[in-house]
Amino acid sequence: MTVLDRFLKGDRRSLAKVITHIENRRDLYREVLARLYTRTGKSYKIGFTGPPGGGKSSVVDLIADHFLKHDKKIGIIAVDPSSPFSGGALLGDRIRMAKLSNQENVFIRSMATRGSGGGLASASKDVCVVLDAFGFDLVLVETVGVGQVELDIMDAVDTVVVVLVPESGDTIQAMKAGLMEIADIFCLNKSDREGADRMAAELNMMLDVKRHGSDWEYPVIQTSALKGFGIDELQEQIHAHHKYLKDTSRFEKRRRRQVRVEVYQHLQDRLLEEVNTRLGGELTLDEIVDEIAAGESDPFTKATEIFDKYFR
Amino acid sequence: MTVLDRFLKGDRRSLAKVITHIENRRDLYREVLARLYTRTGKSYKIGFTGPPGGGKSSVVDLIADHFLKHDKKIGIIAVDPSSPFSGGALLGDRIRMAKLSNQENVFIRSMATRGSGGGLASASKDVCVVLDAFGFDLVLVETVGVGQVELDIMDAVDTVVVVLVPESGDTIQAMKAGLMEIADIFCLNKSDREGADRMAAELNMMLDVKRHGSDWEYPVIQTSALKGFGIDELQEQIHAHHKYLKDTSRFEKRRRRQVRVEVYQHLQDRLLEEVNTRLGGELTLDEIVDEIAAGESDPFTKATEIFDKYFR
Repeated sequence: MTVLDRFLKGDRRSLAKVITHIENRRDLYREVLARLYTRTGKSYKIGFTGPPGGGKSSVVDLIADHFLKHDKKIGIIAVDPSSPFSGGALLGDRIRMAKLSNQENVFIRSMATRGSGGGLASASKDVCVVLDAFGFDLVLVETVGVGQVELDIMDAVDTVVVVLVPESGDTIQAMKAGLMEIADIFCLNKSDREGADRMAAELNMMLDVKRHGSDWEYPVIQTSALKGFGIDELQEQIHAHHKYLKDTSRFEKRRRRQVRVEVYQHLQDRLLEEVNTRLGGELTLDEIVDEIAAGESDPFTKATEIFDKYFR
Repeated sequence: MTVLDRFLKGDRRSLAKVITHIENRRDLYREVLARLYTRTGKSYKIGFTGPPGGGKSSVVDLIADHFLKHDKKIGIIAVDPSSPFSGGALLGDRIRMAKLSNQENVFIRSMATRGSGGGLASASKDVCVVLDAFGFDLVLVETVGVGQVELDIMDAVDTVVVVLVPESGDTIQAMKAGLMEIADIFCLNKSDREGADRMAAELNMMLDVKRHGSDWEYPVIQTSALKGFGIDELQEQIHAHHKYLKDTSRFEKRRRRQVRVEVYQHLQDRLLEEVNTRLGGELTLDEIVDEIAAGESDPFTKATEIFDKYFR
């Protein structure tokens, strides 16, 4: 029996192996993804994002615990683009897993590769596909930070929760980074702190424009992962958003948009791979550089020449 | 006389126009870049990067002032990937310019486009080409933040100055982001603050490995842009690094590597443009999505099909 067969029978060790295989883009990873893809579409995907230090992991763990009590199977992907630790941050994952009340129905995977840029976003989406295919009811994706990678990842989930804290610099950061635009639900965590009510009021005011003419009200939920309040309400709002998407045509529209992005992304990856192969093989980049260094050409002209010759 | 002719005669208004043209990737921008490229290679490019709040702009302004007093012409590019303000953050640029002692020989351009990701890095490099071609002796590139965009941009300069502050969390951030690896010179700004000496000692200890077996000593300079100390020494070390690169074969090697990256980058851009054109035209992405939504195919297979048909 192959690893993939065992995976399809629900073996968790094979799940971890398949993820590693795909994360590292080993041989035939595209074929594996293609095969798994036909089994996807059943998981509900919830993203948690926001500036660092907002207590996202704690919120995610409490939400996961909540769903676990309702006998849901949950996959968690924790993405930290700024961390130098790669692939399996295994110890951290195990500590978190041990804290969750039901270990059988939960699976955590940390992903972090410094400098992989767009690659990390597509790898995260691929892992989403794997978890969906494995049969998790819910996939929770949490990201650390406020960059392009985070925005790209959030593009692949159904409900986006932006986690903020009562310090207002945080909101400005979030606005700058475009998180306000992608949020479906705002979670104002650490709301036991001073200034939380004022911040919630400010947020609500800012959301007036976004709410105007929309059927969804973009709720602001005050939580404290530490003191344990607000998590029920957050979970209810996630449900409400899921229902809202289903009741309108928006669920299908979102998923279709995601498929679009995926096709486009994989085509990009494919092309860039091809460039790498060609530039390493028949084309010797060194000769091109010589020519440019000698003032006989320039990078723009050379790029056009290569493009015309090999890709037109 | 065309804008480009006036540019080549040293007209500053035309310089701003050419930058805008290239930044917005208007018609024939590649041809313009190709023409300008043959006039480049004379500017020395210095990058300043590091976590937000380190006082990078102040350090850059003081360094610029220093070079201006030596009758150098200086172009400054300030890149903030997290800012939503696009293209010409003109007011801020003018305020900074007014503060610099010699306005005639200095030109500042802010670049910030939320969500443009890799696009911002290549746009910044293109602006470097324009400033070099215009005849600036020095191009100072400052970036805000610690992400992939910053690393990509720093790849295109000759000397990388990483600006830190005495708070040690900062160093960890910098290490995580890979800034320690790309740094040639460390500037420990705000060194009038408590803890600066300890932090400098820590940094020096961490640099032991990097220094071992290298001819360059990766100096740590304590500065205070506020109190005005250390800037002379920083400037001397920038000179020393320039001399070091020139005296060894490293200068040419770096520049060759930059050319490589440029060719590769432009080829990537070209290919992605082509994908956009084809996916908008002869290929209707909607039909592809229909097929996938119906469970008849998947994004990976579809990407491969498009690739094989149009780009093989």
